[in-house]
Amino acid sequence: MGVNARPPRGFRDFPPDIMILRKELLSRLEKVFQAYGFDPIDTPAVEYWSTLAGKYGEEAESRLIWRFKDPWSGREYALRYDLTVPLARFIATHKGIGYPFKRYHIGPVWRHEEPQKGRYREFYQCDADIVGSPYPEADAEIVNLVVDAIRSLGFKDGFTVRLNDRRLLRGIFEEKLGLKNVLPVYRAIDKLDKIGLEGVKGELSRLGLDDNIVSEIVSIISLEGDPDSLLAEIEAAYASNENVASAVAHLGEMLNYILDKGRVRIDLSLVRGLDYYTGPIIEVVLDEPKIGSIAGGGRYDNLIGMFTGEQVPATGASIGIERIIDAGIELGIYRLDRKTVTRVQVIYLSRKYYEYAWRIAAELRRRGIPTRIDLGRVNERRQRKKASRLSIPVLIFVGEREVRSGSATVYAPDRDVRETVPIEELYNFIIKIL
Amino acid sequence: MGVNARPPRGFRDFPPDIMILRKELLSRLEKVFQAYGFDPIDTPAVEYWSTLAGKYGEEAESRLIWRFKDPWSGREYALRYDLTVPLARFIATHKGIGYPFKRYHIGPVWRHEEPQKGRYREFYQCDADIVGSPYPEADAEIVNLVVDAIRSLGFKDGFTVRLNDRRLLRGIFEEKLGLKNVLPVYRAIDKLDKIGLEGVKGELSRLGLDDNIVSEIVSIISLEGDPDSLLAEIEAAYASNENVASAVAHLGEMLNYILDKGRVRIDLSLVRGLDYYTGPIIEVVLDEPKIGSIAGGGRYDNLIGMFTGEQVPATGASIGIERIIDAGIELGIYRLDRKTVTRVQVIYLSRKYYEYAWRIAAELRRRGIPTRIDLGRVNERRQRKKASRLSIPVLIFVGEREVRSGSATVYAPDRDVRETVPIEELYNFIIKIL
Repeated sequence: MGVNARPPRGFRDFPPDIMILRKELLSRLEKVFQAYGFDPIDTPAVEYWSTLAGKYGEEAESRLIWRFKDPWSGREYALRYDLTVPLARFIATHKGIGYPFKRYHIGPVWRHEEPQKGRYREFYQCDADIVGSPYPEADAEIVNLVVDAIRSLGFKDGFTVRLNDRRLLRGIFEEKLGLKNVLPVYRAIDKLDKIGLEGVKGELSRLGLDDNIVSEIVSIISLEGDPDSLLAEIEAAYASNENVASAVAHLGEMLNYILDKGRVRIDLSLVRGLDYYTGPIIEVVLDEPKIGSIAGGGRYDNLIGMFTGEQVPATGASIGIERIIDAGIELGIYRLDRKTVTRVQVIYLSRKYYEYAWRIAAELRRRGIPTRIDLGRVNERRQRKKASRLSIPVLIFVGEREVRSGSATVYAPDRDVRETVPIEELYNFIIKIL
Repeated sequence: MGVNARPPRGFRDFPPDIMILRKELLSRLEKVFQAYGFDPIDTPAVEYWSTLAGKYGEEAESRLIWRFKDPWSGREYALRYDLTVPLARFIATHKGIGYPFKRYHIGPVWRHEEPQKGRYREFYQCDADIVGSPYPEADAEIVNLVVDAIRSLGFKDGFTVRLNDRRLLRGIFEEKLGLKNVLPVYRAIDKLDKIGLEGVKGELSRLGLDDNIVSEIVSIISLEGDPDSLLAEIEAAYASNENVASAVAHLGEMLNYILDKGRVRIDLSLVRGLDYYTGPIIEVVLDEPKIGSIAGGGRYDNLIGMFTGEQVPATGASIGIERIIDAGIELGIYRLDRKTVTRVQVIYLSRKYYEYAWRIAAELRRRGIPTRIDLGRVNERRQRKKASRLSIPVLIFVGEREVRSGSATVYAPDRDVRETVPIEELYNFIIKIL
């Protein structure tokens, strides 16, 4: 008894106060996604393992994906690890969906992480992606969407969009420095926030790179600044390289369509962990608290082709709602102060008036006002106590006087209301004070 | 290539047209749940296997639960099979949550079914439950909620609430007929819709029951009718039995609080498959199409105690949204006619006007109107074609004339609108015609 009475380690329950906040935030996000003309889709929690295999990189696939075998069929399944690979699979399943295809997807994903503060084994992702456009304006639309989304969540200021391009890194690392296999280098750089510049140097040395190469990498990834001047600087130094030139041109055009350019910094240390990015990549970080990125994404022009057999360009971003909630609570932007959706509690002074009270509750409910009535046969004092514990703003009392006169007494202390109202006028009265 | 380009067997993708319909229906359901003062919660997709074990009955646990072992920890997990056992576990995890606790929970569950038409391995359940009240008014609140919920989904009429009580069956079967183990009998009766009365007889005989017991069972489960007269009939015949007497009293009181009593039929053949029910049980069936129940539930006063160690009464129901969607489409109540949430497409006559068009789109989006603009660099004809393929109702054209005069031409053929409007007035103009 009690031994199993908890969710699995790393998994969470959401009681009403947290759930009411989460639903409110997801609904604001969804409004922004829809304002940008993105449409909702959903895909299964479960995919064939072979769908996810070979897409993310070593760490995810060796350790972080929840993978299991069906004992009946022997078939290997996995819980989805993100919403991007399922989107790529979806595009192949739904040929003829029409490009550009703009979809958003809000739902849980699962990772076999070692649980720690702010890191869970099940968490929501909120993704918006554009499939079928290779153009910078699509990348810019994603940036504008992300900035508006984060604003809509209450972060008016105090955040920065970090921007880089995988082609810049490839052009400089592969071609200028002559690095053969650049993915391990990206993975080392990706740890910068966690292990610092010295740590990254160590990792790079461990990859067998010469000291002078390591210091060149370090000086390149230290480039960071306002987009126009930094792009000019990079162009001057490396534009003979084709990858660098196309990245600079793409980023320059993209910046033209970004509405809040002042919020964007080019940052060559941004690599993002996943293997599938091919072009511009972004991350959004808060000034405070220092909790890592709260949104991220980029262009992945080759991933969908792994399913469809032909190249389909795509770009998108994921809003990290879990971190945003943690940060918002820490910053006092969000409060867990709504314990119930209920706005009205109908209270009967004695059991004689229960049916009358029931009819009042039924009528308010029919008209859409969240209403409760006691189901525990407790006395008036305990009915009031329960309503007060849940901070229900409006109480409706019915007793002898109300039943006789076909009325109800409305009490809403926060609104300075205490008034006996004829039943026929009750709904309009309540609507006015809510 | 292509081999993995589908969701696993029995799992579904939801493209935008289906997803827009699903979201609309779930949002209507949610409004009704909230009107009744139920609050949202969520629990993990994954539970420890030991949490689910021993709760549902043989079939679910031997065959239908997706169960897997974590290769690292050796721990056994399972995907949740319904939302009721997770609720019971939640109550034990969140001691002190306060009774009655009224929660709704909308989310996917997983069953290892053999896929067939209308039966999936992943599907949504929409549950509302009241924890902590043993009283008939709680059961009645659930019935009223379910009836309002089904109405809100567009089924104004043409459905019936079947009502029974596990204590009626136990009283009559165990005590009057002297049956020792009544669960296999319930399971046989539960197949009535699928295998017919003769099939049930066969199943009962196979359980080793005498022919005369089998015919008595059959005549008892054939009792069906309007609540008042049937309850009187049952009372007259069996009320000396304590279980029958308390069921009759409970159902009688419950019926007092049911708002649409004319929709309720007492039906002694209703047993419901799961083991955990202890009192009133309900199912809602449509007159047409014949697709089984579209909602069901009942009282389960012992389940939560399996986690908390002390009895906690509970009652609730689950709305079968998947079947409702299938039925609604079949009946023509629902149509998959919205391919996008987008209401406005901004169309530029040539690339010169793209930035002007972009600013218009940005402004409409900022103010919350779902707006698209071409991201594929196609000509005007193809922009219009794409908008028309998605049935976007309002087109905004910008060309030389509009840029010069700071205006935009709004074209909404369905609304008989074709008008050039100054930029400053555009938002209000669009809002008016949408």
